[in-house]
Amino acid sequence: MRSMKLVAEGQPLQLFTADPPKPKNKEVLIKVEIAGVCHTDLHLIAGSYDMGEGRKIPTGIRLPITLGHEISGIVEEVAETDQASPPTVQEGDRVVVYPWIGCGSCRRCLSGMDNLCEGIPRFLGIFKDGGYADHVLVPDSRYLVSAASIEDPAQSAPLACSGLTALTSVKKCGLKSDELLLVIGAGGLGLTAIQIAKKLTGARIVVLDIDDSKLESASKAGADHVINSAKVSEKDVVSQVRAANSGRGVDAVIDFVGIPSTSSLGFRLLGREGKLVLVGLVGGSVPFPLPLFPLRGAQVIGNFTGTIRDLVELVELVKRGVISPVVSGVYPLEEADAALQKLRRGEAKGRLVLRP
Amino acid sequence: MRSMKLVAEGQPLQLFTADPPKPKNKEVLIKVEIAGVCHTDLHLIAGSYDMGEGRKIPTGIRLPITLGHEISGIVEEVAETDQASPPTVQEGDRVVVYPWIGCGSCRRCLSGMDNLCEGIPRFLGIFKDGGYADHVLVPDSRYLVSAASIEDPAQSAPLACSGLTALTSVKKCGLKSDELLLVIGAGGLGLTAIQIAKKLTGARIVVLDIDDSKLESASKAGADHVINSAKVSEKDVVSQVRAANSGRGVDAVIDFVGIPSTSSLGFRLLGREGKLVLVGLVGGSVPFPLPLFPLRGAQVIGNFTGTIRDLVELVELVKRGVISPVVSGVYPLEEADAALQKLRRGEAKGRLVLRP
Amino acid sequence: MRSMKLVAEGQPLQLFTADPPKPKNKEVLIKVEIAGVCHTDLHLIAGSYDMGEGRKIPTGIRLPITLGHEISGIVEEVAETDQASPPTVQEGDRVVVYPWIGCGSCRRCLSGMDNLCEGIPRFLGIFKDGGYADHVLVPDSRYLVSAASIEDPAQSAPLACSGLTALTSVKKCGLKSDELLLVIGAGGLGLTAIQIAKKLTGARIVVLDIDDSKLESASKAGADHVINSAKVSEKDVVSQVRAANSGRGVDAVIDFVGIPSTSSLGFRLLGREGKLVLVGLVGGSVPFPLPLFPLRGAQVIGNFTGTIRDLVELVELVKRGVISPVVSGVYPLEEADAALQKLRRGEAKGRLVLRP
Amino acid sequence: MRSMKLVAEGQPLQLFTADPPKPKNKEVLIKVEIAGVCHTDLHLIAGSYDMGEGRKIPTGIRLPITLGHEISGIVEEVAETDQASPPTVQEGDRVVVYPWIGCGSCRRCLSGMDNLCEGIPRFLGIFKDGGYADHVLVPDSRYLVSAASIEDPAQSAPLACSGLTALTSVKKCGLKSDELLLVIGAGGLGLTAIQIAKKLTGARIVVLDIDDSKLESASKAGADHVINSAKVSEKDVVSQVRAANSGRGVDAVIDFVGIPSTSSLGFRLLGREGKLVLVGLVGGSVPFPLPLFPLRGAQVIGNFTGTIRDLVELVELVKRGVISPVVSGVYPLEEADAALQKLRRGEAKGRLVLRP
Repeated sequence: MRSMKLVAEGQPLQLFTADPPKPKNKEVLIKVEIAGVCHTDLHLIAGSYDMGEGRKIPTGIRLPITLGHEISGIVEEVAETDQASPPTVQEGDRVVVYPWIGCGSCRRCLSGMDNLCEGIPRFLGIFKDGGYADHVLVPDSRYLVSAASIEDPAQSAPLACSGLTALTSVKKCGLKSDELLLVIGAGGLGLTAIQIAKKLTGARIVVLDIDDSKLESASKAGADHVINSAKVSEKDVVSQVRAANSGRGVDAVIDFVGIPSTSSLGFRLLGREGKLVLVGLVGGSVPFPLPLFPLRGAQVIGNFTGTIRDLVELVELVKRGVISPVVSGVYPLEEADAALQKLRRGEAKGRLVLRP
Repeated sequence: MRSMKLVAEGQPLQLFTADPPKPKNKEVLIKVEIAGVCHTDLHLIAGSYDMGEGRKIPTGIRLPITLGHEISGIVEEVAETDQASPPTVQEGDRVVVYPWIGCGSCRRCLSGMDNLCEGIPRFLGIFKDGGYADHVLVPDSRYLVSAASIEDPAQSAPLACSGLTALTSVKKCGLKSDELLLVIGAGGLGLTAIQIAKKLTGARIVVLDIDDSKLESASKAGADHVINSAKVSEKDVVSQVRAANSGRGVDAVIDFVGIPSTSSLGFRLLGREGKLVLVGLVGGSVPFPLPLFPLRGAQVIGNFTGTIRDLVELVELVKRGVISPVVSGVYPLEEADAALQKLRRGEAKGRLVLRP
Repeated sequence: MRSMKLVAEGQPLQLFTADPPKPKNKEVLIKVEIAGVCHTDLHLIAGSYDMGEGRKIPTGIRLPITLGHEISGIVEEVAETDQASPPTVQEGDRVVVYPWIGCGSCRRCLSGMDNLCEGIPRFLGIFKDGGYADHVLVPDSRYLVSAASIEDPAQSAPLACSGLTALTSVKKCGLKSDELLLVIGAGGLGLTAIQIAKKLTGARIVVLDIDDSKLESASKAGADHVINSAKVSEKDVVSQVRAANSGRGVDAVIDFVGIPSTSSLGFRLLGREGKLVLVGLVGGSVPFPLPLFPLRGAQVIGNFTGTIRDLVELVELVKRGVISPVVSGVYPLEEADAALQKLRRGEAKGRLVLRP
Repeated sequence: MRSMKLVAEGQPLQLFTADPPKPKNKEVLIKVEIAGVCHTDLHLIAGSYDMGEGRKIPTGIRLPITLGHEISGIVEEVAETDQASPPTVQEGDRVVVYPWIGCGSCRRCLSGMDNLCEGIPRFLGIFKDGGYADHVLVPDSRYLVSAASIEDPAQSAPLACSGLTALTSVKKCGLKSDELLLVIGAGGLGLTAIQIAKKLTGARIVVLDIDDSKLESASKAGADHVINSAKVSEKDVVSQVRAANSGRGVDAVIDFVGIPSTSSLGFRLLGREGKLVLVGLVGGSVPFPLPLFPLRGAQVIGNFTGTIRDLVELVELVKRGVISPVVSGVYPLEEADAALQKLRRGEAKGRLVLRP
């Protein structure tokens, strides 16, 4: 079994070889077909999250660790189990792995919200070995979602984090069909969120980016209005966005860029009861003005991936052709660092993935 | 008719005398019995809200204006109206006035959320003449809530803002009965919120203040644990609060102090999906660290007063003796400035009210 | 002013002529362009609702009354009003009238839910004179929704009841995008509901009717699967519906037919936590088996029209072309009875409307 | 190991002796201290649920089976497990067992709603051997809730079904603090529901029963008004209940009796948007009049036990002394039939439990 492990902060990943693990109890061994490369991996390599004002907090991971939390693959071996509770997969099944596995017994895990585990989470590719490898061990078949009818595993792997975050970000906006959503950032997550918002809410969508080609993709994905914020003044951004909502502030903003300037702008554009959904871990801090929260009834809402029930819903949407993730590059497993560097330089137009 | 009007920013209020207005259409004239004095009045006199980092935004009010948005009184005159839609009050009725009257036709007013009006609001005591007077004109009898069985009008007036904000702040926490609420500030609003949370949610309550006598009142009002944050280190505050929640962060914080240091502390104490509810207009800004929003699924929620339906519910709670507002001083109308100054100096232990 | 009034139960409507009323206070006089003809009008004429098992309850209306609660028209006269709260419409504006006007001061009216008024409602065309006339008086401009960009008033009038009920029925289902909705009855309401569910929820839709041409319209409107229940056995209906949901019962049913046999079938098809939404007033009773409620976590939910906020959202959807009501016949005002009889005989394929 | 098994429909339970099972994988062996006796056990023995109108549906259980789904006990043996996911209990821990264990992988189990499992549920005491025994095998430690500080296991066992149903029934009512709840039946579930509603919602509570001593207990538990429906006419019941809600229908009814006459009465008493929560499996059917659903916006909601997260919340409430279940009789395991007969005759004033 080959795997690319992080052994020291800031260092290139290293190739390890070993026998694949033997599943026991309720475990399932998956042969990895595709593993997505995520911005979070860059933070894990860096070793800390940036809290702004010079403060950092460690990521809490233990090295060495195999990265990779967006995993699709084939069931290779199911541990023997009792008849009373048979596994829900069989050898040969094509699956997407839900990687946000919690402790299993805290209040949130018991509610099906492993992603917000209050105990000791077992997130694959973060706290447990993940998918930058030819095999990965999953603790229970319940964390495997059938992807039988999605032929290309590169279409399903990114659903586990990028797609999931797009779906739950839209849900957290709680949009009515006559409200306006502003999406900041038309990269992979942004384009998926646009497709989802279009099909699931009926709301109008304005998109902000600094790249015309991305904005063109946004329009194709369903955006009603796009703005290149590099080409117009901030004042014009504000007036265009307001004009798109009959002079009101926007009802919800999802900030997929997640740097202080975008979060700050997003907050300023909120109307009454407006919601700013934050998903990024890029870091920094924003001096949100306290009186505007009550005066506008504004909300800032952090969103971290989603539940396995959300992933089931999302995979179904891809099967039905409602949404389709954008993949822009496939790398061999051993070239994981090349993919990570391309992502770090901001050159990825869609999801980059590894094929072991 | 005597009224105390704000005629210039930062100046003492001035006494005006005139004939009381004559109600027409659906208007109702109220003889004011009690008008509460609110922190917001101090901001209105100052003329701006402090956004932090040296920025201020104007309050948007037009001078001269009669302040006073916490009003209880007696119905004095109801304008003639058609039989098809008779007024819901009669001359002589004792009422509390709902002052957060919106434009009446925007999306939020149509939903009964006048307090978050997207149009041109008609908030009494802010954008229209209010209760620092012996009479006040209310545009429609639907904004009057019967206080027939509350004998002391000093008990009902503060419900319109202070009490209402306490109620809706607790509601926005969405507490389960095994969750933990942290209340920062055991003044009038804080004590009312403690009573409400105790009776309506079953959740456990920890209270933070710097005044032992207020903390004693908090314990009587139902707090399970109180902390004098002036006497222990911030590290101890954190560990005591966590200990009260089995080592987890808190599920919700209501910050009734609303200055950067309390909001910052409140945010830091949040556990998974924790909610920080902000109500104050004191001002300033807090550099909330962006990555903590998604990593914890944290939310910061602004809360501005409440709906008239909320006020109806609150008045009922007072009638049933479930909660009782704390009033600490009654002033003649003409001494409004003395009450305002006492409030400005932070010397009010409960609500101060004016009696015309 | 000409109006068609119900003067006695079960009798044809009678033409009255009089001067149009003069608006006063906040009233607005509307020149009616189109008034929709609704099944509820048939019940009002009959004088009672059928509770099943031989029991009937009176409708509670007082005769004579001008029927017609689906009204679009032009603002003809706005009563003089004060500057503090100007009317939101001007003479010449094209509007849809929200007819479900409540008492204005009960708990539900205060929450913007006039349609569920607990007091003495003033529903136009039911408890107050409605739109089967060339003019109608509306008590306040807040009940008028701008239809400026909908050229054909026959497209906007049916939104006030038929369209509104379709929208809120879909909302009450609370569908996730991987759930299944069963719509029983592909008439005017059913087709509108299908369009709305398609655009606003992403859920899959199965439609049941006994008329192939209606089922064809249902497919065009977005149904994923249609079943002619007159051509297959009930057992086959059950198995086809279950097959469409991976063997599970359906997640929600909206029964637009509303007779005992359809409601009974709808209930039987529910899966876990399944919701059966009932909208019809046709009458009768269904012996729902009590143990199935807890065993399945099933719900039966009554839905009565919607709020004015819902109507604002719906009108916006029509303006944007997301949905388009189906009108199948336009009658002169004086021929209201001919339209009512066609509806009574079940011969209307879409909405019938009157043009004064 | 001794266990009382149901071997044939309608027959007395039979005593079996065997070695206790050996836990493997993630299983945990519990030494039973107390097992509650529930009405559902009577239906399981009878073999079917009564759908009314002469129809019955089988319970779907396979014989022989050890009944008993309300179980408290001591952890006796934990199967060896890997370090990555340690069990959350240790030998000697006192626990309540969550018996509503689902398939683990359907949409509802993935959401933490095992009790509404869409797959093949493994409910203990129903589909798997339960607690009428000195030992019971639980498939995973996550289904065990610590009862460390509840000394008397007879206080904790009934929480798993009776208490849980009371809690979730109150939750499904969604009460505001100025609304009115009607509880029909002041037996064990009813009294628990009254305590919960009192402490967690602030709503007013009216209780209906035919036994004055039970009504006295209801008053002590927090009921605001009680009515002996055997002593007043139905008309008087209706007028007393309405009088208690200012002339309106009630906002919610929980029918713990669950026979056609009580469900029918409960439905009739509903006001606008009123909710009738049904929990009983006694059976029969009620001819609910269809037009009243839309005319009132009424809802009938089935409620089946609760989630494990609900049980965690409930156990906490007992630990804090907020509620206390009422146990009226303790029987030796071998006398299970005597307890079942007493329950069948309606002679149990509180929960009956078995001690192995």
